[in-house]
Parts: sequence; structure tokens; C-alpha cells
Amino acid sequence: MTQQKDENALVAQIERTFGSVKTTALPVAFGDDAALWLPARGHETILTCDWFLEDSHFLRNKHAPDAIGWKCLARAVSDIAAMGGKPRCFLFGLALPTSLTGKWLSSFLRGLRRASRRLGCELAGGDTTRHEKVLISITVIGEVRRGCALLRSGARPGDLVFVSGTLGEAELGLRELRRKRGVAKATDAALRKHLYPQPRLALGQWLAENRLATAMMDLSDGLSTDLARLCAASGAGARIYAHSLPMTPLATARDGLELALHGGDDYELLFTVAARKAARLPRSFHGLRLTRIGEITRERKILLQTEKGKDKPLHPGGWDPFRKL
Amino acid sequence: MTQQKDENALVAQIERTFGSVKTTALPVAFGDDAALWLPARGHETILTCDWFLEDSHFLRNKHAPDAIGWKCLARAVSDIAAMGGKPRCFLFGLALPTSLTGKWLSSFLRGLRRASRRLGCELAGGDTTRHEKVLISITVIGEVRRGCALLRSGARPGDLVFVSGTLGEAELGLRELRRKRGVAKATDAALRKHLYPQPRLALGQWLAENRLATAMMDLSDGLSTDLARLCAASGAGARIYAHSLPMTPLATARDGLELALHGGDDYELLFTVAARKAARLPRSFHGLRLTRIGEITRERKILLQTEKGKDKPLHPGGWDPFRKL
Repeated sequence: MTQQKDENALVAQIERTFGSVKTTALPVAFGDDAALWLPARGHETILTCDWFLEDSHFLRNKHAPDAIGWKCLARAVSDIAAMGGKPRCFLFGLALPTSLTGKWLSSFLRGLRRASRRLGCELAGGDTTRHEKVLISITVIGEVRRGCALLRSGARPGDLVFVSGTLGEAELGLRELRRKRGVAKATDAALRKHLYPQPRLALGQWLAENRLATAMMDLSDGLSTDLARLCAASGAGARIYAHSLPMTPLATARDGLELALHGGDDYELLFTVAARKAARLPRSFHGLRLTRIGEITRERKILLQTEKGKDKPLHPGGWDPFRKL
Repeated sequence: MTQQKDENALVAQIERTFGSVKTTALPVAFGDDAALWLPARGHETILTCDWFLEDSHFLRNKHAPDAIGWKCLARAVSDIAAMGGKPRCFLFGLALPTSLTGKWLSSFLRGLRRASRRLGCELAGGDTTRHEKVLISITVIGEVRRGCALLRSGARPGDLVFVSGTLGEAELGLRELRRKRGVAKATDAALRKHLYPQPRLALGQWLAENRLATAMMDLSDGLSTDLARLCAASGAGARIYAHSLPMTPLATARDGLELALHGGDDYELLFTVAARKAARLPRSFHGLRLTRIGEITRERKILLQTEKGKDKPLHPGGWDPFRKL
């Protein structure tokens, strides 16, 4: 049975689920007009916000509320990883139909709380309202040692291009989920990556603190789309080697390349390293593979070098909510 | 004619409208994975987020895009005023149908930019996506001298209760707007207050810096609803005098009381002052009337004292997106 809740009751349930937080960093949280926040000494604050909308980013008949709760925070936290920072707290905008304020909401909040604890990112505040579809807006507040943040704009010609993990798995998981009937379970690696992405926080922080990367971003919309953004911000181009892409072993060879180039939602890190520092990068970081996939070029084009050694232009083919119409 | 835009083009238009910002406080803004933010020395950061949704908070056939742009930021900034802080920057989540990415968007962005400049609150970042309705989520980042923030929880029995300005005008404006056909113009004071609310930043800062108030919040959902929240946070009750409420002269006497008690969207400040400090409050602050409307009581009830001197319970009757169903 669905309970009828007013806004105060909803806010109280959220506060109860997360527990009251009062720390030096977060002396005032949830429950007042706003939250107060103080980063650690010598650090600056990182701010990022992300949409997670029913029918655009998830399907209510396919995605379990627990997975929605996890993913809405994990993907926003990935932007903090992309700067080399540490997530600290988040603001949480939630709009939903009254019919979902019972069981669905409880399960959603449990997934969100698990992500919050695992990622070290506490609830600082939010705004709730009613809407016929579920709308989620997440703002994550993180911190990074002053001057250490890794931006998109730092890549220079000659730098080597790296990615973490494998590419295309989350997109493969999405395809599986579309094929199957009913709510998806994380039964295999591809679905797991689609439903419960893991922001690469430890790697991002290690690269930033050791000043190993010149530029970095997370792969949310697909390599072809995101690499073009990093290159545009850096005023440079890139050449990617098709044969070196860390494709998912779960796909066929041909699908694998398409998925690795254009598949979204992987939340792996894309970063560039000056050639003279490349030897300091391990092949894997705490079990996470690091792969050199190309190089930054002076010429402002994004090229894909085929297995036969031929360059062809690589056009952005990843996720774009506006182009998809 | 509607242009077809991809997400990069949309982000570029927003960035162009606001101009590139790079300051000591905001060394990295719009265009990277996240923004970097440093408050002034000795200050802490204030964080708040707010929904502004088509059909819940505004009507596309009644509200001009310019007014929507102004109001979505102004009402979020009001939460910074409510803490006694200074707004500094904001993150901006925008979802809209492709058909609105032309003229509507330009006019909306102009209203938003005017609010941004007037309120001293720069665009720091955001996320854009497509949706069949216009969805806006605003996160405002502000600052306040460490230890000076005014919370809801500081009111003590015996404190006097004050409000700024007049109450109920925005609700009156909403009624007018509902009666009229087509897109509303700010032709009179009530419509102006509904369409272009002014957060009480100078007053909030003055009260905080001079340590004059014990508790404060902004009136967004209506006095009866918001006062109950302030009292709950402070573990106290309140008695309000009906005859002293600063009703809008634009309404009839009877309507005026209902509007003052339950009308939402005024964005005036509600604050409490220790009795011994009350004499230090002027009757008006830079032209903005300050009115003593009641007192904080030990007994945890919210009472309205009628003109005949009789106490009756004042139940929350303001705006609640969940109760309204």
C-alpha cells in the first residue's frame, strides 16, 4: 500500500535513512535552508551537478530502485574522480509521483545510502517535490589539494593517451537489459557495470597527487565524444590506435570496437601523460588495467588508426541527448 | 524557426551568454568535468539546491521565459540570504524539449543572466539534457563568515518574531496570473513580486554580521508552514498576532490575512531576535519594512492570536507539493 506523505514526512524519511551528519567539514546539513561546508586545509572545493531522469537515463520498468539509487550518485561522483579529487558530500534533488513514496522510495534510498557510504560522500541537503516522473538532480561537493586538480585542458602534442579498465561494457549491459523482460539483475559483468558503475576515485587521486597526468576526464558519453571534448579544451587533436583499445571480452570482435569507441556510461578515466613520464605508469593500478590507446597531436583532428595502419577521422558517435531525436 | 542543437552547441550558447569566468574564487568554471571553488579567507561555504519545474513551479503558457530565468535563480539565492550569506556562484541543471532550444532558450538565458549579475552569483557549471517538459535544478554556492550563519534552530522562548516586507503579495500575483489569459507581464506590484522575487540579501547579511538574529529562514512556502519548521528546528512554539501581520494593501482585509498566513513565494525573511536586542532593529532597513509579528514560546504550539485577543491553533496551510494531490 502506498502511503500519502507530505513534504516534511518525506524529508524526515530521507534524514532518517542517512542519519544526522555533523562534522567539522559539514557543520550544518539537511534540515536547514542550506548546508555549510569547509574543505580540508590547503584544499579547494570541487562542484559538479548531474541529471538522472526517468526515460532519459533509466527506465522504471527495467531498473531496480536500488540500482537507480546507486547509479545516480556514482555517476555524479565520477566527475570528482575526473578532477583527481575526493568526494565529500552531495545535495540531492528528488521529484517523484506520490505513488512511489512507499516501497519504491525506501529501496531507492537504500541504494543511494550504500553508494554514499562506499564513496565517502555524505548527504548535505536537498529539495523534494512531486512530479509524474522520477527526476533526480545530484550535486557533488569534493575537495582536491590546491593546484592539483586535473583539467581537460592540459593535454599537449606528444602526450600519450590512456584509459582505465575496459570500454563498452556498460553499453553492452544496456543492450542486454533492453532485450530482457522485467527488472534487470546484475547477473553478469556487463549488466553489473551498467547498473552499478564504480567511479575510479583511487586512480584519479593517485594521478593528481603524483602529478602524472596532464589532462583527465571521465568517459560518460563514449570515447569518440569525450575525447573530442578533451582535445577541444586542450586546443589539440589525437590519434587513437584501434588495435590497442581495451575492448570488453564479453562482445564479439566487431561489436567490441564499436562499443569501445562509442559506448557510453563506462565511467572509466581518460587521461594524458607526458611521454617522459609514461614509464612511471604501471600496467594496472590496484587490479584496474591502464591502457595506452593513442597520442595527442598538434593537428586538431581526431583520427582512428585502423589495424592496417590507415588513419580515418573518428566522429563523435557517443550519447547525446539532443542529437538522438 | 527552431534550431536543432546538439549538447555541445547548447553548452557553448550558455557559456557565451554568461561569458567565461575565471577568478581567484572560481578558478575553473563551466566547460570542465566540474568547477573549482575557494571561499574568501575566514569564510565557510553555503550550499543549497532548488527545483523549478514546469507545471509544478511555473506554467509555460503563463510565465515568460525571461521571468522563469530570473525566478529560478532568485528563489534559490533566497536560501543563501536566509543563512545571512552572500551568493557567489551557481550550478545549473537544465532539461528542455528540442523545440525550445531557439528563441525561448535565449530569452530564458537573458533573464537568468540578469539575475546572475544583479545577485552577484556567477555561473560555475551545469548539466543539460532533453526532456518533454522544462526542468530546472539550481545549486547555489555562497559564503558566510565562519560561525556567523543564521540557522533555523536558534530561536529561544521569549525571542521576538519578525518578518521583512509584506506577506501574501506573491500569492495574490499568482491568482491574478491564473485569471488573466496569456503570458503575464509585471504590470502591478503583486505580479512583479510573483514573477521577479527579490531575495533579501542585504538584510540577511546585516542581521548575521551584527549577530542580531537568533534564528532565520526565508518564507517560500507560506508563514504558517515555514514558521512551524523554524519552531520545530528550535524545539519551541510561537504566538503570532493577527493584527500585526504586514498584509499586502493590494488585497481586501479578509483575503489579506489568509494570504499573509498561507501565501507562498514571498521570499521575505522570517527571523527571531532576543528581546533585549529588539531595540537595535530599525523599523525599516533600506526601505524594507521590518515588522514584529509575534513571540517564541516554550510550549511547542503555533498559535494565532486573533484581534479579539483569543489564541487559536495555526495549522500549516502553505504550499506543499505532496499534500496538494
